[in-house]
Amino acid sequence: MPDVSDSAPAAPLTLRPATRADLPAVLALLADEERVVDPASLVVDDAYERAFAAIDADPRNEILVLVEDVDGRAEDSGVVGCLQVTYIPGLGKGGAERALVEAVRVRADRRGGGLGRDLMERTIDRARTRGCGLVQLTSNKQREDAHRFYGRLGFAPSHEGFKLTLRPGPLTETSPRHG
Amino acid sequence: MPDVSDSAPAAPLTLRPATRADLPAVLALLADEERVVDPASLVVDDAYERAFAAIDADPRNEILVLVEDVDGRAEDSGVVGCLQVTYIPGLGKGGAERALVEAVRVRADRRGGGLGRDLMERTIDRARTRGCGLVQLTSNKQREDAHRFYGRLGFAPSHEGFKLTLRPGPLTETSPRHG
Repeated sequence: MPDVSDSAPAAPLTLRPATRADLPAVLALLADEERVVDPASLVVDDAYERAFAAIDADPRNEILVLVEDVDGRAEDSGVVGCLQVTYIPGLGKGGAERALVEAVRVRADRRGGGLGRDLMERTIDRARTRGCGLVQLTSNKQREDAHRFYGRLGFAPSHEGFKLTLRPGPLTETSPRHG
Repeated sequence: MPDVSDSAPAAPLTLRPATRADLPAVLALLADEERVVDPASLVVDDAYERAFAAIDADPRNEILVLVEDVDGRAEDSGVVGCLQVTYIPGLGKGGAERALVEAVRVRADRRGGGLGRDLMERTIDRARTRGCGLVQLTSNKQREDAHRFYGRLGFAPSHEGFKLTLRPGPLTETSPRHG
């Protein structure tokens, strides 16, 4: 697929919650950040179906897709970006939710044209409209380009982000010998 | 209230979801990190009631309290620590949830005795038992003591943590003149 970031005319963009029909396109964006993956080449297995259904059914979680509104039919258009938002209720700030953003992706052949900024600004507006008091996210320390991007959007790098990977079950001392 | 961190015998500890009866004690921990606040001195207003009810009703959110099991009656005992956990469904890692930890507090007069470690280890075990693939949190960059604490628990400071405070409504250019 050619890089069309400079040559394509600006199509109207829509940010909306992903539907089941968008799942292959979302999985393609998550599968490889560096290359364009053909959604049709992916197998949507049961684990993905269940995970998507869980997110879709949860009023405090949503996967948002940025779609190009080709021919006025956003439903049929190409997904060029996605992210997940979790709205977290809390006891601080008069009970206002905070919005946690994860898994931000712009299609590899469409970077550098402002789509990421558009995706984030619309997501921030959506959180504000919902009544959130804060948007928060973490970004791998190796991604200095992403840090500048979030800085330009007004985010402050005020926190250290810690992760602890868990292995399933209590018996994790030995590596599995089979399978 | 005297500092009893050295003199008190080790009482059995329980980690459990907070009930409505724990709300004043939790709000007291959140109100002032540096001093012990008497829960009876706090007014639990409607906003807190609604926020607690929202968290309590959400199967992917919980406030956990670490309580001393005095006389075998954990329900009547003192809350010495608390935190909030949000279990986030996602499309990665075979659909495993990740656990986001926020608002970690140990009562000011009981620090330095391992209660924070106990609180976190039990929370991590709880997340693992639930099937989470990851525990994540952010800590203000000024809290270097907290960073060492999370490092000793096995957390990797792999990410930058970004926050964007939102002001309510679209008309935020001017400061309110009244109220």
